Amino acid sequence: MSTSNNKPSLHTILTPQLLDLYDVKDSIVVIIDVFRATSTMATALHNGATKIIPVDSAEQCIEMGKQTGGITAGERDGKIIPGLSYGNSPSEYPRSFIENKTLVITTTNGTKLLHMALKQGAKEVITGSFPNLTRVVDYLKQQKAPVILGCSGWKNRFNIEDALFAGAVIEAIKDEFTIHCDSSFMANQLYNQHKNNLPEYIKTVTHWHRLAAYGLEADMLYCISQDTAPSLPIFENGSLVNRIM
Amino acid sequence: MSTSNNKPSLHTILTPQLLDLYDVKDSIVVIIDVFRATSTMATALHNGATKIIPVDSAEQCIEMGKQTGGITAGERDGKIIPGLSYGNSPSEYPRSFIENKTLVITTTNGTKLLHMALKQGAKEVITGSFPNLTRVVDYLKQQKAPVILGCSGWKNRFNIEDALFAGAVIEAIKDEFTIHCDSSFMANQLYNQHKNNLPEYIKTVTHWHRLAAYGLEADMLYCISQDTAPSLPIFENGSLVNRIM
Repeated sequence: MSTSNNKPSLHTILTPQLLDLYDVKDSIVVIIDVFRATSTMATALHNGATKIIPVDSAEQCIEMGKQTGGITAGERDGKIIPGLSYGNSPSEYPRSFIENKTLVITTTNGTKLLHMALKQGAKEVITGSFPNLTRVVDYLKQQKAPVILGCSGWKNRFNIEDALFAGAVIEAIKDEFTIHCDSSFMANQLYNQHKNNLPEYIKTVTHWHRLAAYGLEADMLYCISQDTAPSLPIFENGSLVNRIM
Repeated sequence: MSTSNNKPSLHTILTPQLLDLYDVKDSIVVIIDVFRATSTMATALHNGATKIIPVDSAEQCIEMGKQTGGITAGERDGKIIPGLSYGNSPSEYPRSFIENKTLVITTTNGTKLLHMALKQGAKEVITGSFPNLTRVVDYLKQQKAPVILGCSGWKNRFNIEDALFAGAVIEAIKDEFTIHCDSSFMANQLYNQHKNNLPEYIKTVTHWHRLAAYGLEADMLYCISQDTAPSLPIFENGSLVNRIM
């Protein structure tokens, strides 16, 4: 990987609990929650949602839904949270349903990390997932700013699927960034080791087993499919909107 | 990996900052600081040191050295800390020097994690490194208790060399433990991917570059050599002693 000092830095945080080790003020933070928050966000915006309001709790979700007239969404343990209307599955948000609507969503891990990055003063926050991989890659190449790839993990623990996505981004942009970060090296190696058999490999990770118990296998296979929802969710004025390049 | 419920659990924490996510009260915590704290501890005890007193700061090191008549050791940025007598290199502790002596040592990462594990009430604390890999493996197999493999990392950030050692332990004991932990899966895969070319691979990690700048390449190659110092450092009554099996 490159070590030129003229290139912006790139770091990977393997769980939200490590974000405070980094100064994010000059950085674009990429929120990664492959199963399933950021995959669903990319899909809803690609399918024409006006905006997505990520919130921390079911209570906020209900309140924000009332204020905006938006669709409320959130799951815990594979079931829609009482008081909300929809779940966290990308399959729930086809164009025929979500176009020109506002989605208010709360998730277990991804929305939490997003708010942490905002609170720590990140220069910019975007969301990344395999369905919008190439859009994320192209945007980061274009901006030429320091990057932090933020894995949402599972309740602050490391998870493999988010590291795989970080590794996929790194594989595509590493020549244009300065990388002195073992987390990034590891994520990139993990992705390269498994990129040709992702649908098989992904069945070995802990989160697969957790969600498969709720019958969500098809959802997860969608969440590792590349460039099926080529939007660029970017946080502006309190919500994620699709940045058209 | 096995999923039998009769087998004790095994988890890996990738940096000290993730230790508080786990209840360590029933667990043996293995402190891992490959470059170089736990490699040096294994070496000093193998070479006959009576005991090792791990302390958090240079001040404590000086004070404890006075109280015990022990040898004081600690480095920052590749230099012996002013007021202490020796450094963190395993090569400084041959039998001819360390036999029957007490070593009081402070290091950047490993001693810190060790004290965190004690403070959180770990059932037992041992230290692991490639020079004492087989002793650690044999001990864990024998105890049949829950295990937490604790990577010391670098200033709370993830590092690859500690994960490699965790992966080596997992490779040897995974059939006898229940493992539902992506950190452990990743560490084990990383080790298996690189185990046949460790001396080359290790030159790519960030810590190699940091220590190579101080001329410590030979030290680091020693620290990835297996079973060259087959001791079992175990924490008892305020110090690490060599448990004879």
